[in-house]
Formats: sequence, structure tokens, C-alpha cells
Amino acid sequence: MPTYTAPLRDMQFVLHEMLNVESTYKAFPAYQDLDAPTINQILEEAGKFASEVIQPLNQIGDRDGCTRNPDGSVTTPAGFRAAYQSFIEAGWPALACDPAYGGQGLPLLVNAALYEMLNSANQAWAMYPGLSHGAYECLHAHGTPEQKNVYLKKLVSGEWTGTMCLTESHCGTDLGLLKTQATPLPDGSYTITGTKIFISSGDHDLGTNILHLVLARLPGAPEGTKGISLFVVPKFLPNTDGSVGARNAVECGSLEHKMGIHGNSTCVMNFDGAIGTLVGEQHKGLNAMFVMMNSARLGVGMQGLGLTEVAYQNSVTYARDRLQMRSLKGPKAPEKPADPIIVHPDVRRMLLTQRAWAEGGRAFSYWVAQMIDVEINSQDEKEREAVADLVALLTPIVKAFLTDNAFASANEGMQVYGGHGYIAEWGVEQFVRDARINMIYEGTNGIQALDLLGRKVLSDMGAKLRKLGKIVKEFIEEEGVHKQMAEFIDPLADLAKQFEKLTMDLGMKAMMNRDEVGAASVPYLRVAGHLVYAYLFARMAKIALTKQKQKSSDSFYDAKLLTARFYYAKLLPETASQILAVRAGSASLMKMDADLF
Amino acid sequence: MPTYTAPLRDMQFVLHEMLNVESTYKAFPAYQDLDAPTINQILEEAGKFASEVIQPLNQIGDRDGCTRNPDGSVTTPAGFRAAYQSFIEAGWPALACDPAYGGQGLPLLVNAALYEMLNSANQAWAMYPGLSHGAYECLHAHGTPEQKNVYLKKLVSGEWTGTMCLTESHCGTDLGLLKTQATPLPDGSYTITGTKIFISSGDHDLGTNILHLVLARLPGAPEGTKGISLFVVPKFLPNTDGSVGARNAVECGSLEHKMGIHGNSTCVMNFDGAIGTLVGEQHKGLNAMFVMMNSARLGVGMQGLGLTEVAYQNSVTYARDRLQMRSLKGPKAPEKPADPIIVHPDVRRMLLTQRAWAEGGRAFSYWVAQMIDVEINSQDEKEREAVADLVALLTPIVKAFLTDNAFASANEGMQVYGGHGYIAEWGVEQFVRDARINMIYEGTNGIQALDLLGRKVLSDMGAKLRKLGKIVKEFIEEEGVHKQMAEFIDPLADLAKQFEKLTMDLGMKAMMNRDEVGAASVPYLRVAGHLVYAYLFARMAKIALTKQKQKSSDSFYDAKLLTARFYYAKLLPETASQILAVRAGSASLMKMDADLF
Repeated sequence: MPTYTAPLRDMQFVLHEMLNVESTYKAFPAYQDLDAPTINQILEEAGKFASEVIQPLNQIGDRDGCTRNPDGSVTTPAGFRAAYQSFIEAGWPALACDPAYGGQGLPLLVNAALYEMLNSANQAWAMYPGLSHGAYECLHAHGTPEQKNVYLKKLVSGEWTGTMCLTESHCGTDLGLLKTQATPLPDGSYTITGTKIFISSGDHDLGTNILHLVLARLPGAPEGTKGISLFVVPKFLPNTDGSVGARNAVECGSLEHKMGIHGNSTCVMNFDGAIGTLVGEQHKGLNAMFVMMNSARLGVGMQGLGLTEVAYQNSVTYARDRLQMRSLKGPKAPEKPADPIIVHPDVRRMLLTQRAWAEGGRAFSYWVAQMIDVEINSQDEKEREAVADLVALLTPIVKAFLTDNAFASANEGMQVYGGHGYIAEWGVEQFVRDARINMIYEGTNGIQALDLLGRKVLSDMGAKLRKLGKIVKEFIEEEGVHKQMAEFIDPLADLAKQFEKLTMDLGMKAMMNRDEVGAASVPYLRVAGHLVYAYLFARMAKIALTKQKQKSSDSFYDAKLLTARFYYAKLLPETASQILAVRAGSASLMKMDADLF
Repeated sequence: MPTYTAPLRDMQFVLHEMLNVESTYKAFPAYQDLDAPTINQILEEAGKFASEVIQPLNQIGDRDGCTRNPDGSVTTPAGFRAAYQSFIEAGWPALACDPAYGGQGLPLLVNAALYEMLNSANQAWAMYPGLSHGAYECLHAHGTPEQKNVYLKKLVSGEWTGTMCLTESHCGTDLGLLKTQATPLPDGSYTITGTKIFISSGDHDLGTNILHLVLARLPGAPEGTKGISLFVVPKFLPNTDGSVGARNAVECGSLEHKMGIHGNSTCVMNFDGAIGTLVGEQHKGLNAMFVMMNSARLGVGMQGLGLTEVAYQNSVTYARDRLQMRSLKGPKAPEKPADPIIVHPDVRRMLLTQRAWAEGGRAFSYWVAQMIDVEINSQDEKEREAVADLVALLTPIVKAFLTDNAFASANEGMQVYGGHGYIAEWGVEQFVRDARINMIYEGTNGIQALDLLGRKVLSDMGAKLRKLGKIVKEFIEEEGVHKQMAEFIDPLADLAKQFEKLTMDLGMKAMMNRDEVGAASVPYLRVAGHLVYAYLFARMAKIALTKQKQKSSDSFYDAKLLTARFYYAKLLPETASQILAVRAGSASLMKMDADLF
């Protein structure tokens, strides 16, 4: 049975030694009093909750799944509800919410760390509060004062939960095709009618009400994405005193049978004249929903990170325990019938791959979360704009790169277990199945890649990208003078240069042939992800080298440095192939007639 | 629900146009009368059986799995038994077996094509007869005359089936640790006592008896792999007339709960003083078992090929039907609400990746199967030795490269389906789960890579490898003069040269540090696999170009050429990264202390 221990030391390293949270956030009025010990204490408590309360439910949830009852209600796996009660009693949903609605007002960065841990412990469970937080952010940004008053406190307390209702059976990526209808009522509210599919946490028994954020079309709305509006549709209509009132006409029609995340109720939701209210402006629903979608994309990246970490931890444990063959250099544990498999270079390759993806993913996603905090809190408009651009650029990379790497890590972990990895009881094949959805939902990783290259990089002629390039270049200039850093700075500088040229060449080709964008996007995103990781591993290596120079006896820094070296030696070379694949262009993809396939 | 149509045209292309089966096999006394029409007819019939009889059972088998009854017997999913009855009535188990025992004496190559189709249709089902054929080969090679008389006819007719009982809970890779005991009886037979795990097809209701090939230790046997003997242990002891007699003391203790291949009964098998007879010599059981293991490794490669093909077919169908977004170059199907997703370059990238892995895998595995036929049938000892070396070299590549690529293909296929791919009813997530085991069993792909680099390449100082190199070089020399072939020959020659140098450098490093072998093996195997695929795609492209020059109107050749070009443009570049990973050596893997992980 898998176990999980929150990687507090590495989290603290990223937060305090790399991102200097305390000093950075001191600049913001809201965080004058935020200090490192408080953050650490929160993380420690969250880690306990993750390991002790929800991790033990992970395999149960996978095995038993959710149940749709004859009355259409949905029951979550045994223990899920009680765990959720503990979660809201401890105030976790409020962590990064607005104090005006009962929130604790902590940085999103701390919330990101919380969700890393929840996802490591039990992704299917963590999706219930995770989506609620997305709904909170969307309503906080776009809700009317009345909507905020009625809904936000309930989401902050966790009594009520939220969902995102976008997909219909004939449209996922292409939301312009959606058919769900909204009809205005005389009192200013609307009735919503249509069927949504793949609705995570669509119905369940954790809270007392569920707020569905639903995309639908108003009568006479323009076709395509410009005719979509956003509505909030509660499962139970709220009374004026905030209590739960009449049942609304929205119901789970059926539960989907899925490859993984069985503990989450993925529902077909039928809206049959359900009452809702408009969020944001008419026909601008997609804009409003993008708040939730961007938050969800980072959230999915954190799911990837969580699974990478837990898969790593368990395969390390197994590799230390499992005795099989002798080291090629002669017995390492002669007193035992065979050596633990962690002596074998190829097993180490798999473990270090997982480890590097975990550490790189943590540094990356926390860095982006910090930038979102800066975007929200900075008093300097130019700084806010600059980080907003970076966040826009990096969000699709967080989503796709972390989840691709998480799937690879879960598979490497399974491979470490050999045949036992394929057996359900060991719990590692569940990581593979759970990790697989993260590459698909909230926009497939292919769509993320198109978003990155088409919308974020090429549409502003590389302006956002140059902001990232500047950060990397400044670091290269600063550290290039230190001989000890050459092992990192030289390849980083080389990749940065190649990437710049690659982007320019692609921009030229794309002007002549739009298919070049779609042909290049997926390998391009892989290269972009590596550029970020190479930059962050170099930053982390710098800190570790400094600590070693200061004669730190903490072996954490040795391990950090060795992981960075492994990353540069064994994972970064992926860029060589991906750059060639980008440069190979679109001809080999487009020349075959569809009926020749 | 997925469908499957045997890719007869491509199979025929490989068999007749690339491998020239008819003319090649005419040289062998056993195949004087073998002609292409006969082979094609067999394949057509096999394709029908696969599509019509066992493919419709694939999802049922996955959903319902096998059942262990209170009496310890195992029942396969509904329909499995009836399908097996049709299979043996049609004589399929006999296809490539010795006529002396009722076999039809056809080449193994034809059997390989049969198994490609069975695996596409239903891998879990195909494992029952697949393992039986492995048991047939092992007993045919190493059985006593009496064992052959009693057992082979039954395996050839399919009335009885077979298993391989190697793994114990504490040993899989490291069989030297196994503990199952064999005790001699006065009549020359043995009692076998011990517990084996992960036994595919361990117990079931398809045939009337099951022959377990069991590795065990005799009293006083040397420790390690040199003290292992092989026994055949029937579920029911045979009577002298060949009928089924008394129940033997071997029983399925439990069924494993697995990620996939649910339709196959993966059993814990308890041998409790079960009666068996020795196969081959005492303490040389691993040698005898290797016949079955090598056959099984090629068989697992064919499982990978089968899944690659069926995943490809279904994602193409979906990509033609699913309407989502417009082509970046403007509407391609303006009469529809959106374009079919097959217009999008990134969807084509995924489909062509699957297609290239399928076509390359078919060419490769059929080529190796043909070499095994030559090894068995050639009158020329030198030729036999030469192909035996090539088969030994290529077997781990077939096993690992095809199954890695199959898992990637199943995942690409799932990605084409978007959210629907994650839903069980569509049947494509099953391909991912089923494909995953192929990378693990019959020696993990990591073990295959060690076998390739350590045992097959370095231990004879590259002698076997030079035989492959010679074939590639001769082709390069022959085709290098044709300008039209330069797009293939130039990169192929470049890779061949790089690979030769890489191998020599590795050999030098390995002499100084054995860990260099384990550090390099997995990426080295990827490069080796690409060398073979690049060679074979160039051969296939040559045939297609020739046909085009001859003004063939068959668009099959256009598609073949375009697939080869796609392979060279988009997949072959993987070698750039893998070569860098090989060259990065072992230091970054070995320096971290085990307790720092």
C-alpha cells in the first residue's frame, strides 16, 4: 500500500531559499505580517492532513468509486465525506480566500503548496475542493455584488462546493459548438436547459449545496464562442438567509466509467429548466470562465506535480527494499541474498527521472503561483502587467509539461516495481491511471501547446516570450562569471539561444503557412518547458553551491546539486530531438490525404 | 466500441514485397509447395476470426475479468470458451507446429502474422493459445520422446494449454533466488512444492488440461541460476491412452487484480507436492526455459504490434468523424459545423506516429520471424549460425522497442479521443492498460536493454552487431547511388556511423566501469531500434518508389512512402537525444547515496 510524506524540506527550499517568500511578500500591504514560520507551520499541518486523512482513502476511492443512487443523488466512497468535514472544520478552503468573505487571505502560493500535497495523497478527493476554489475565483472576479454575498462565504467555508460545466458530448475543445440554452425570466434570472458531460464533482454528498458554473447560449446569441454566456446554477436555490432552499432542476443523469480518478464523481449533468443567474456580461461567458480555466490549468499542473512526488516516494521505498541481482560492480549487500535494486544504474535512472520532474515541477509551479500573487498584490502597474504576461505565457507550459512529466514519472515508478507494479494492491498503477486524465482535461496538452505557440508566443510577435528570455539572460550574465556554474550556464545559454532562433524561424514559417504552428506546437512546448526547468535547476544549483561553500552540513544541498546535474545530463538532452522535430515542419504531416490513413 | 479490420494489404506487402516469402521459402525442403495465395488465404481467414469472434469479446473480458470459483477452478469471461472451441476446431493452434504431432508445418512467420491479428483483437484472450504455443516449442526442443508423445499432440490440437511458471513473490528478474522445490520419486518423476505468482493463463476453462512448465530446485542443487531445473506439471495427470486422469496437486490460490488484460487469468499457483517430470537436464532448466522465453519475447513484441495497429485504426476512425474547430488554413468541411479533427496537424502527428510504429513494427517483427524460419530450415550451417546471431541480437529489441512504441501509440490514440478517450465505453483506455504489461513481463524492457547491450553486443565484442551493420551497410551502398533514395540513405548512413562509434566508445568505457552498461542500456536500445526501423523504412520506401516509377495506381505505395518520410522527419530524431543520454554516462546516476534519494 502506498504511503506519502509531505516533502516539506524541498517545499521550504523553494519557498524560502529560491523564492524568498518572506521578503518578497513584505512589499505587499496584505502580507506585512506574513512570515516563514507561519507558512511552514501551515504546510506541516496540511502535510499531516494529506498523509493521515485523505491518503488512506486513495485506494478505497479507486476500488469502490462513486455510486449514483436511484433518486439521482451521488454517494462518494466511504470516508470521503468525513474527510471533507475535517477539511472544512480546519478551515482549509478559506486559506487563500478574501477575508471579506471569511477567507484567511494567504497567498495563492501557499494554496498551491497545499494542493500539491492533497493531490499527492488523493487526487480524486482533492478535485472536490479544488474545483470549488476555481468557482470561488470566478465568482470573486466576475460575480455581481449579490452573487458574491450569497455564494462566496459558502464556498470559502467549504459548506458549498463548485463545478465547471463546459463540455457537451459533441464539443470539448470547440466550445463554440455548445447548445445548452438559457432563457431569460422576468425577474432577471434565467432557465438553463441542456446536457453537460464529464462534469467533475458534478454531484456528491460532501457539502450541502453545489454551485454549477454553466456555459450556455441566450436566445438570438451570435454563433460560435461570441455567443456564450456564463451562469451560476445552484443545486438548491438559496433562501434569502443563505440557507438551502428548493431543489433546482439539475441532476446527475449518470456517472462516467473512467480509467482512473474513480473517487471523483464525473457526471453527465442534465439541466432541465434549472434556474440560474448571469455571471459577467451576456455573450462574454468564455471571458469570465477563463478565470476559472486558468486557475484550473495551474491546478491540473499541481495534480501532475502531486502524482510525480508520490510516485517517486513509493518507488524509492520499493527500490531500497526489493532485493534482485547483484550490482554489476560486485555485491553491495553481501549479507543479503541479493542487492537492493537501488544499486542498479537503470533503476537510478528511473528514480532520478521522477525526482527531477518533481523538483523541477515544484520550483516551476510555485514560481508561477508567486507571480500570480504579485499580479494581484503589486502596487506597481508595470510590474503587474509584466508578471501577468509571464503568467499567461507560462500557464500552458505548467499544465502540459508537468502533466506529461507526471505520466512519465508514474510509469517509471511502475517500471521500478516490475510485475508488482501492474497489480492493483500495490497502488502504483493507480498513479498511472489517475495521471493520465491530467494530460486531457482543462484543454488537452495539444491544445495547451497551440495556446502557447499560437496565442501566447506568435500573436504578439514574441513580446511575452522576450520577458521570459530577459529573466533567463540576466541570470546567465550574472552567473556566467562564476566558473563553478559553467556546467549549468553553458548549456542553459546554448538552449536559450537555440530557442530564440527556433521561435523566430517558426514565426517566419507560420506567416507563410498556418499549419506550421500546429505541426510544431507540441515539440515546441517541450523545448519551452526544458528552458524553464534548465533555468530553475541552475538557480537551485547556485543556492546549493553557495550553501556548500558556506560549509553547510545539510546533505539536502548535495542531493539538490546532484539532481540538477542529473537533469542536465539525462533529461535536458530531450531538447535536441524536439528541436529537430519542430524544424522538420508540417510537410510530412499534411501531405497524406485523409482517406489514405 | 472499438472495431478491428486486419491490415491485410500491409501484411501482404511485408510478406511478399519486402520479405519475398514465396521465393525465399522455396529453398527449404519443408516449404516447396508454399505459395503466396495460400498464405493470403490463411491470413484472410485469421483476420475474420480475429475481427468477428474474439474482438467482440475484448471489452467484455476487460469489464468482467475472470472468476475464481469456490472449488479453486477459474472461469473465463463469457464467450471466451466458445471462441476457443472455434479456434481449435479451425485448427489454428496447429498452424506452425510439427506435422509429426498433427501440426500444419507452416512457417513461424505466418504464425506471427496470426498472432498480430489475435492481439489486435483481444490480447487477453490471445495469451491463452500464445502461451500454449510457447510450451509446445519448449517441449518440442527439450522434451523426452515420451513427453513429446504424450503432450505435443494435445498442445497442437489445442485441447490442452500451457503456462510458464517462473516468478515467485521475491524473484522475477533474479530467478537465481527461486525456492520452489522438486523432490525425486522412485519412478523417475518428481514432486513439486512451492508458490508461483503472476502466472498468465494459470487456470481456466478453455481446454481440458493445463501443462505447467515450472522452474524448481532439486535437493542439493547449486545456489543461483545454475541450480534450477525445468519440469512439466500437468493439471490432470495423463492416462496412458492420452486421456485426462487424476487431478494433480496444483491449484490457483487466487487471481491477481491487475491494471489490464483482465480477460486473462493471472494466477497465484500453489504446487503442493504436484507430480511432474524433468524437461531437459538437471540444473539446466533455465537453458531449456529460454526457448520458451525467447519465443515469448517475440510474442510480447507481437502483442505490442497488435495493440499499436488497433489503437491506430480506431483513432483514425474517430479523427475522421469528430468535428471540432476549423483548419488553421480555413474551413475544410464548410458544410459542417466544424472540420473533422483529422485536418489538424497535431492530430495528424499523433495518427502518423501510431501508423509509423505499426508499419515499422510489422516489418521488423516479421523480418525476425522469417530469420527464425531460416534458422530452423536452412540447409546451410553458416547461414543458420548467422541468422541465429541476428535473432539473438534483435529479440530484445523486438520485445522492448515494439512494446514501448505500442504504449506510446495507445496513449497517442487516447489523446486523439480527448475526454472520450478516458471513458471506458470507448474502449481505447483499455488499449493503454493492456499495452502497459507488455513493457514489464517476459523480462522488463530495462532487462531487455541490459540483455542487448551487455550480453548480445559487448560480450562478443560486437560480433553479432557487425552482422546487422553489414546488412545495413550493404543496403546503403546499393541504394546510395540512387538519387531518389538520398532522403533516406543519407540519414540512415549517418545514424549507422554514429551508432558504430557509440558502441565502440561504450565498449571502452564499460571495460573501465561496469556501471556504464546499465547507465546506457535503455537509451542505447532506443537508438538500436531506430537503426533497424530506419533501415526497414528505407527498404519499404525503395519498393514504393519503384512501384510509383512503374506507374502503379495503387495509392498504398503513396501512403507507404509518406509514412516513411514522416518516420524520418518526426520519429527518427529521437536518436539525437538518446545518443546524448548514452554519452552522458553513469556519473550523474551513481553519485547520489541511496539514503539521499
